[in-house]
Amino acid sequence: MESIGVLMPYPTFPYLEHHLQSRFNLLRASTNYTTSIRAAVVNAVHGADANFIDALPMLEIVCIYGIGLDKIDLRKCAERGIRVTNTPDVITDETADVAMALIISLLRRLCQCDLYVRSGNWKRQGSFPLTTKFSGKTVGILGLGRIGKAVAKRAEAFNCKICYHSRTVKTECGSYKFYPSVVELASNCDILVVACSLTVETHYIINRDVMNALGPKGVLINVGRGKHVDEAELVSALIEGRLGGAGLDVFHDEPDVSQELFGLDNVVLLPHIGSATVETRTAMADLVLANLEAHFLAKPLVTPVL
Amino acid sequence: MESIGVLMPYPTFPYLEHHLQSRFNLLRASTNYTTSIRAAVVNAVHGADANFIDALPMLEIVCIYGIGLDKIDLRKCAERGIRVTNTPDVITDETADVAMALIISLLRRLCQCDLYVRSGNWKRQGSFPLTTKFSGKTVGILGLGRIGKAVAKRAEAFNCKICYHSRTVKTECGSYKFYPSVVELASNCDILVVACSLTVETHYIINRDVMNALGPKGVLINVGRGKHVDEAELVSALIEGRLGGAGLDVFHDEPDVSQELFGLDNVVLLPHIGSATVETRTAMADLVLANLEAHFLAKPLVTPVL
Repeated sequence: MESIGVLMPYPTFPYLEHHLQSRFNLLRASTNYTTSIRAAVVNAVHGADANFIDALPMLEIVCIYGIGLDKIDLRKCAERGIRVTNTPDVITDETADVAMALIISLLRRLCQCDLYVRSGNWKRQGSFPLTTKFSGKTVGILGLGRIGKAVAKRAEAFNCKICYHSRTVKTECGSYKFYPSVVELASNCDILVVACSLTVETHYIINRDVMNALGPKGVLINVGRGKHVDEAELVSALIEGRLGGAGLDVFHDEPDVSQELFGLDNVVLLPHIGSATVETRTAMADLVLANLEAHFLAKPLVTPVL
Repeated sequence: MESIGVLMPYPTFPYLEHHLQSRFNLLRASTNYTTSIRAAVVNAVHGADANFIDALPMLEIVCIYGIGLDKIDLRKCAERGIRVTNTPDVITDETADVAMALIISLLRRLCQCDLYVRSGNWKRQGSFPLTTKFSGKTVGILGLGRIGKAVAKRAEAFNCKICYHSRTVKTECGSYKFYPSVVELASNCDILVVACSLTVETHYIINRDVMNALGPKGVLINVGRGKHVDEAELVSALIEGRLGGAGLDVFHDEPDVSQELFGLDNVVLLPHIGSATVETRTAMADLVLANLEAHFLAKPLVTPVL
């Protein structure tokens, strides 16, 4: 397959680039090669919009090194008969781990505690103030897909009650209570975890009403997408104490983060590390390679979106 | 019971002090009242040594607001027929939560990530370096008591393999692999969690050999007692890269912490917050009160040690 032109328009992961280079004709920029490019490897943050796809007349497949589809022009791909793959499943555990870490570190003020010890304040000022227990709390999950279920499984081991809202009732999760709206879910849980995909319907789904329903003792965890949350409303709710806290791995305009958040001690802010481990990035890269090879060997795609 | 003298030699928790004061004759210092003191409420850090007990000739019961017994002169209490209670069970979930938070935040560099976002480095310098996945790793537990089992239950929900070392094989935990020594346990796990009680046998049980067996990719988590670990050896192992990392809630001479740890990014340092939530401290206080009342009503103690 060394003659097949594969475009990777921006750097992803050295391991993936190395293997693409050794197995395909890897091109880093599309200029002058547009008619030789039959595949594109993109990520979920930058995606592949209509202009990108239109510029590549011979494009057969877009492989997303990631899971989110919101930056991929799926309609355009469908019109042109372009196949699309992503890397689901392999990031499920990892992202659920981050959600759990966000919950506990937020409730227990873990990062502040670490700074308290390192600064010598423990010795000078005595015990750190009491915080909030996690085990046994009610965890509400918005979007009971792969990641949502993985969060629920973990939270159950902490003796938490699980409830959720999603487009459909999940009959296979009968022990979890379903709420027909996000506001009802938020009103009935201590910790609300956003784990749905970003669509027109879920854009800004976490609005002022939801934050007020969570309330001064409730906390919001976002491991979905930044645009699920009205970030300006979130900043007000946190500063005014209408919301107890927030643990965020994603932001509205990341890596631009609302600077009002930087000084708050009721937030944990992560630089979108949901899948950012050596193990998971390697598994994601292997899945991109497997999909590419399957396509060009005319075999079934491993993780097709289209 | 308002005439019964109860000594609390140092502050514990306002809720507990309030209820002791309203139900008993609460004394803050033993001077001049030694013959009227029939009960003492102490914590696990300062405890009750032979001098303390000898000074109180009418002492009938020592109630520990906490769980550790290493600072209590149990032999002296037994000789004098003094009853002893502590507050087990109610701190189990809480301490296991802290162990889990230490593991994930250490492997995923959570506190460094939070600082990376808050300092604006995410926008300036791009993605945070890749870290290490937690789910699926092998967790070795030293001491499979209440807290050890609670850690195991949580880690299982992260698809971890569980192994352990303790004084006896726990037949009720047949799916967990037993190792007959700490070094063998450390050689066969990725994450070693210290959750045993502090005794003569377990003092410095985490020594150089154990750290070397854990190795450069292994991490040590201590939610037991500081004196389980040879802290000077730990500092060398971390600085020399012979040990991958450490998540510590307890220290050898806390709140004095080895300052060599303060600059390391492969450690998470907590100010002994194992049980430090409002919910758990309230449950602990209620248990102290219940034991005191049971004793003076000649009913069975709720959580007797002696």
